[in-house]
Amino acid sequence: MIRFDSDYCEGAHPQVMQALERTNLEQTSGYGEDEHCRRAAELIRRECGCPDAQVHFLVGGTQTNMTVIASILRPYQGVLCAAGGHIACHETGAIEAAGHKVLPLTDKDGLINARQIVREWERHMADASREHAVQPGMVYISQSSECGTIYSKRELELLYSACRELGLPLFIDGARMGYAIAGSGGELTLRDIAANCDVFYIGGTKVGLLFGEAVVITNSALGRDFRYMMKQRGAMLAKGRLLGVQFEEVFAGGLYYEMSQHAVAQAIRIKSALVKRGIPLFCNSPTNQQFAIFTHEQLKMLKEKYVFCHWQRVDERRDVVRICTSWATRSETVDELIEDIGNLP
Amino acid sequence: MIRFDSDYCEGAHPQVMQALERTNLEQTSGYGEDEHCRRAAELIRRECGCPDAQVHFLVGGTQTNMTVIASILRPYQGVLCAAGGHIACHETGAIEAAGHKVLPLTDKDGLINARQIVREWERHMADASREHAVQPGMVYISQSSECGTIYSKRELELLYSACRELGLPLFIDGARMGYAIAGSGGELTLRDIAANCDVFYIGGTKVGLLFGEAVVITNSALGRDFRYMMKQRGAMLAKGRLLGVQFEEVFAGGLYYEMSQHAVAQAIRIKSALVKRGIPLFCNSPTNQQFAIFTHEQLKMLKEKYVFCHWQRVDERRDVVRICTSWATRSETVDELIEDIGNLP
Amino acid sequence: MIRFDSDYCEGAHPQVMQALERTNLEQTSGYGEDEHCRRAAELIRRECGCPDAQVHFLVGGTQTNMTVIASILRPYQGVLCAAGGHIACHETGAIEAAGHKVLPLTDKDGLINARQIVREWERHMADASREHAVQPGMVYISQSSECGTIYSKRELELLYSACRELGLPLFIDGARMGYAIAGSGGELTLRDIAANCDVFYIGGTKVGLLFGEAVVITNSALGRDFRYMMKQRGAMLAKGRLLGVQFEEVFAGGLYYEMSQHAVAQAIRIKSALVKRGIPLFCNSPTNQQFAIFTHEQLKMLKEKYVFCHWQRVDERRDVVRICTSWATRSETVDELIEDIGNLP
Amino acid sequence: MIRFDSDYCEGAHPQVMQALERTNLEQTSGYGEDEHCRRAAELIRRECGCPDAQVHFLVGGTQTNMTVIASILRPYQGVLCAAGGHIACHETGAIEAAGHKVLPLTDKDGLINARQIVREWERHMADASREHAVQPGMVYISQSSECGTIYSKRELELLYSACRELGLPLFIDGARMGYAIAGSGGELTLRDIAANCDVFYIGGTKVGLLFGEAVVITNSALGRDFRYMMKQRGAMLAKGRLLGVQFEEVFAGGLYYEMSQHAVAQAIRIKSALVKRGIPLFCNSPTNQQFAIFTHEQLKMLKEKYVFCHWQRVDERRDVVRICTSWATRSETVDELIEDIGNLP
Repeated sequence: MIRFDSDYCEGAHPQVMQALERTNLEQTSGYGEDEHCRRAAELIRRECGCPDAQVHFLVGGTQTNMTVIASILRPYQGVLCAAGGHIACHETGAIEAAGHKVLPLTDKDGLINARQIVREWERHMADASREHAVQPGMVYISQSSECGTIYSKRELELLYSACRELGLPLFIDGARMGYAIAGSGGELTLRDIAANCDVFYIGGTKVGLLFGEAVVITNSALGRDFRYMMKQRGAMLAKGRLLGVQFEEVFAGGLYYEMSQHAVAQAIRIKSALVKRGIPLFCNSPTNQQFAIFTHEQLKMLKEKYVFCHWQRVDERRDVVRICTSWATRSETVDELIEDIGNLP
Repeated sequence: MIRFDSDYCEGAHPQVMQALERTNLEQTSGYGEDEHCRRAAELIRRECGCPDAQVHFLVGGTQTNMTVIASILRPYQGVLCAAGGHIACHETGAIEAAGHKVLPLTDKDGLINARQIVREWERHMADASREHAVQPGMVYISQSSECGTIYSKRELELLYSACRELGLPLFIDGARMGYAIAGSGGELTLRDIAANCDVFYIGGTKVGLLFGEAVVITNSALGRDFRYMMKQRGAMLAKGRLLGVQFEEVFAGGLYYEMSQHAVAQAIRIKSALVKRGIPLFCNSPTNQQFAIFTHEQLKMLKEKYVFCHWQRVDERRDVVRICTSWATRSETVDELIEDIGNLP
Repeated sequence: MIRFDSDYCEGAHPQVMQALERTNLEQTSGYGEDEHCRRAAELIRRECGCPDAQVHFLVGGTQTNMTVIASILRPYQGVLCAAGGHIACHETGAIEAAGHKVLPLTDKDGLINARQIVREWERHMADASREHAVQPGMVYISQSSECGTIYSKRELELLYSACRELGLPLFIDGARMGYAIAGSGGELTLRDIAANCDVFYIGGTKVGLLFGEAVVITNSALGRDFRYMMKQRGAMLAKGRLLGVQFEEVFAGGLYYEMSQHAVAQAIRIKSALVKRGIPLFCNSPTNQQFAIFTHEQLKMLKEKYVFCHWQRVDERRDVVRICTSWATRSETVDELIEDIGNLP
Repeated sequence: MIRFDSDYCEGAHPQVMQALERTNLEQTSGYGEDEHCRRAAELIRRECGCPDAQVHFLVGGTQTNMTVIASILRPYQGVLCAAGGHIACHETGAIEAAGHKVLPLTDKDGLINARQIVREWERHMADASREHAVQPGMVYISQSSECGTIYSKRELELLYSACRELGLPLFIDGARMGYAIAGSGGELTLRDIAANCDVFYIGGTKVGLLFGEAVVITNSALGRDFRYMMKQRGAMLAKGRLLGVQFEEVFAGGLYYEMSQHAVAQAIRIKSALVKRGIPLFCNSPTNQQFAIFTHEQLKMLKEKYVFCHWQRVDERRDVVRICTSWATRSETVDELIEDIGNLP
C-alpha cells in the first residue's frame, strides 16, 4: 500500500538522520542547553529577522499548543480560534485540561478574519453580564490551516493589527508552516510571520524531522519563564540537543524550504489531475494537503493501492478524503496516482 | 422602580427568615454535620422517594455545577449540554477551569433530547480518531431550562433511558426545580425527577431561600467522597446549619411548593396579558420566567417603572426581555404591570 | 453540652440578623452590585485608609483563598506558607486543584518570618536547575494564625518589605482578623494591615456574621478582572447584598471590633485560669483560640460538660485541645468553665 | 571535558541508531498504531510475564509521570511519595498542575517503606476532619531511586502488599529501571517488577535510547482510555513508531540489559576507587549513579577534566556530587577517572 494519509508516515529526511548519526556520540548538557540548540535558535532568529526573539524547542504540536496557551492566558480567559482548529477538535481537550475554554469562531475553509475577532471582542465587552462569561484572552490560528488553506500576508497583517488594538496576543500554530510558505508562491516568508504575531512555531514533525516544533516568541512580555512552563508540561526533552541538531540541519542551508516546496509541488500535481478528471475539491488548497470528493466507487478502486485519510461524509454516495504529500513523496509514486486518477470511472 | 429582572431580587421568604432567627443561638457542629442538615436531608429523601440517596447542601449554582461535574468526569471527558445551558454560557468557564470541555448540543428553547445524546455518542464512537477528541462523559440539563421551558416526564424518561444505555450519568441542574414542578401542572414531582437521573439539585437561591442548593445523589456509585469534593471546591459552608435550617423550613410543610406555585401563577397572568395585547413571546414558557419581544418604544415606556432583564436583540427595533416572578412578587404589582401592558402602544 | 470547639457554632450577632431582617424585602441587583455592597466597601476602604482599594465580598475562607491565589500566580508558581497554614493542611488541596503547589516553611507557633522568605527565594534562585522546581510566586500568612498567634506590626513590616524586594505579593488570610486586632492590645489596626500587604481579607464567618469574607486588594495590579475570577470559582453570591448588608452593619459602627474584643477578653480569662491551675499551654496565644495540654483524666471530666476541638496528641497520657470563644460566648459560661478548670485533678 | 553528570549526555546506542536508520523510509500509521509499536509491546509483555498488560510508549519521564498519575487519581486525592522523589522536587509542579497534591514521606536514601504507607493512611482515616485534607490516592516510588538506591524484591512485595490492602495503586517510575535490575545482582527481573505494582514504566531516555518510556499497566482497571489521556497531555508522539522501533531493538535481544550492566559495572569500579581513596559516599548506591563527598580542593582538581552534577552542599568545605555512567561510558575513560581519584590530595 502507498500512503498519502499524512505527512508523518516516514521517519526524517536522510540529511536529518545523518546529522543525528554524526552527533550521536557528542557529550552535551541536557534540556536544550547545548550548542546545537543555541546554533539552531540563532539560525531561526536570523531567518525570522528578529534578533531578540526567544526560540524554544518542543517535541510535538499538542504539547506546544497547550504550553504556549497556558503560559499566556489568565484563568478566566479563553482562546479564540477557528471552529475547525486543531485545539478545538483534535487535542482531546488539552486546552480545557489546562483550565481554558476554546472559543470557536465559524471558519471559512479553516480560516478566520480580523472582523470576526473584533466583533467577538465587542460582543463580549458590550455584555453587561460579561463577568459571567469567558473573556477572550488571545487568538490562535493555524498556518497552513487544517484545510490546507493559508492566510495571505495582507490577511495576517489585518488580523494582527486587530489583535494588537484589542490587546489580544496572536499565536500561530505553524505545524505546517513550511507548506504555507511554499504554497504562498513567494508571497510569505518567516519574516512576515514573525512580524505579524506575538508567538508562533515552525513545525518539524510534519516537515521532515523525526519530531520537533520550534517556538518563536517575538513579544518579549510573553517569554517570561517559558522554560518553567515547558518543564511543567512535560515539554522539555532530556536530550534536547536532538531538537537542536535537527533544526540546525534544516535551517543551516535551505533544506526546510526545499522539503516544503517538494511536497507542495507534488500536491499541486495531484490537484491538477483531480481537476482535470473533474473530481470536485472540498476546498481550494495551495499546500501539501488536498481534499478531494470521491464517490464510493472511486474510493473503492483507489483504496486497493493507496491509503488516504478519511475526512468527512458528503452524502450517501460521496466522501471527502485528504491526500497528503511530504518530503518523502516520490515523484514516480505521484505519476502513478495521477494515472490512476485519470482512469477513475 | 419595580424589579422583575430576576428571581433573586429579595432576601428570603419571611418564614425562612424566622427559622434562621429562631435557631440563631443554637450551638451546632460546623460543615453540615448538624441536626438541621440531617433533618432537612431526611425530609428531602422522603419527598424524593429515595431513602438511600445522599443529600448535600451547597451555597450556589455555579459552585454546585462545578463540584458535581468535577466529581463525575475523568480528565479526558466532557459534559454534553444545551448550547444555551448555564454551564456553557454563564459560569465564566468554571467547568473548563476544572479541566473539562463543555460539549454543546443545539437546543430548542433550552431543551435537548435523547436522540441528540445518542447521535453525539455514536458519532464519537464511530470516529477512528476518537482518542484525539473529548469523550462525552455525562449529560447536563436544566429543569426548568434557562428559557423557562421544562422537560415533560416522558422526555425525561427517554433522556435517562438513553443515558443509562450509553453509560452516561445524567445530572439535572434544578436551580429552578420548584418552578418546573409548579409549571408542569401536576405532571411532575420530585419523585419523577429522582427516578430519572443520577444526580440533581433542588434550588433554594432562586426559590425563596437566602441561598442554598440541595444536591441529591441517587446513583450511589457517584456519591463516593463527595464531601471531600465540596471542601476542595470551597463549597462546604462553615455554618452549614444555615442551609439545613432553610431547607428544613421549606420542606417540613409545603412551603417550597407554595412559593413556586405563587411565582408561576403570577408569571402566567403576565403571559396571558402579553398574549392578549399581541406581544410576541420569544418562547412558550410555563414557568416563572417569561420572555417577551417588545419594540423599543414599548420598552422605553415600561422601563420608566419596571426593571427587566435584557435577553437579546431581535432586530433594529425589537428586543427580548425576561420577566421573572418569585415568591416575593405581589399580586397587586402584577395587576399594575398587566394594566401597563394592556396600555402599550 | 457547651461548645467551645469553634468560633462558628452559632448563627450571627443579633444586630446582624436584624439588618438582614430589616432589608429582607428590598429589591436589589444581584452579584454584589447593590447599594449595600457599595456602602460596605466604602466603609471598609475608609477603615483601612486606602480609598482606592478594591473590596469584594465572598462567602467562605477556602473559597476566598483559592480565588485570590489562583488570580495571582502564573501556572508554574507556588505559594510560600507556614507548614501549618490553612491552605497547606485544611482545604483538601484546593490550591493544588487550582494547579499550584503549596510551598511549606517551618513555622513557629503558626508564624513565619521575613528571613525565611528571603532564604527560600535565594535558595530557589541559586539553584542551577530551578526551572525544574516550582517558583515561589507569592506569600500567604494568616493573621491571627491557626495557632491563635499574631504577627506584630514590626514583623508584618519586615515581611512585607522582604516580599516587595523580591517581587512576591503578600496575601493575608484574615479569617480571624478581628481577633488579631483585638489581641494586639491596640498595636494593630486595619490600616496597618492594609499598609503591609498586597491583598488581605477581613473574616466575617468566624467573627459574628452568618458568613462572608471581605477581600481588600490594595495593590491595584492584582485587582484586574477579579470579579471574573470570583464567578468562575463559584464565589459570586447571587444575592450578594446579603454580604453587603452584614459587613455594612458591623463596620457602620464599631460592632466588628466589639465582637472581637469580647471574644478575646473571654479567651484571656480562660487562659489565666489555665495558667493559674498549672495547665501547660501549647502556645502562647493572645487571641480567641487557646490551646491547652490536658491529661486524659482531665479531659474526660471536662468533656462531660464541654465540647472542645481535639488538636493533637502529645504523648500517651496527654492531648492538646483548642478552646475557642466568639461574640456569642457568655461571660457566665466562662465563669463556669473557669471554676471547672480550677477544680481539675 | 569528560561528562559524568548524567546518563543522557549522548544520543542513543549505535544499534538503536541503526534501527532508526533502517526503518526510516518505511511508511506507517501514526500515533503508536504501527507494527513496530505492536511488536515492541509484545516483547515487553513477554519479558514482564504479563500477557494481558497494556503497553504504551511515551516520550519523557515528567510527561509519563503526569499522565499516569492524572489518569489514576480522583480530584481530591494526592500521591504519596518520597520527599526526594522526582515528582516532588524536579518536575516544576507538573502533578499540582494536574490538580493533585504530592504527599511527601521522609525517605531514607530515596526509599520509603510499607510501614510508612500504612501509617500515613491510618493517620488520614483516623482524622475526624479528614474531609478537609487531601486523601492519599496512590503511591509513587522510583526504581532505582533518585539516590541510586534500589528496593529489594522483598521490600517491593511488602510495599505492594500494603498498597493492595489499602486499595492504593502502586506506580513505579522506572526511568532507570535497567540500572535497578542490573544493580540488584540478579535478584530482580522485570517479572518481579510487573508482579509487584499496578503500573510502571521502563525507561529508555536514560538507558540508551534517544528518548522513550514504556508504560506497562498490569492492573486492567487502570488502563481504561489511557490513550485519550496520552493525547490530552501531549504525550502521543505523531511518529509513534520511533518509540516502537527503539524499544523493539533493545528488547528483541538483550541489549537493554547489556547497556544497563555495562553502566553499572563502570559505576561500581568508580565507587571502589572512591572507597579505596577514602572519599566518603553520600549513600550506598549499587547502580549507575554514585554520590561522592569531595572537598572543594578535590573538586577543583577534578573539574579541570570532568563534569559532574552538583548534588548538594555538605558544609563550608565539602559538596556532594553525582557521578553518572551510561551505555556510552568508555572503560578507558573510567580508568582515567580512577587514576585521578587515586591521586587526589
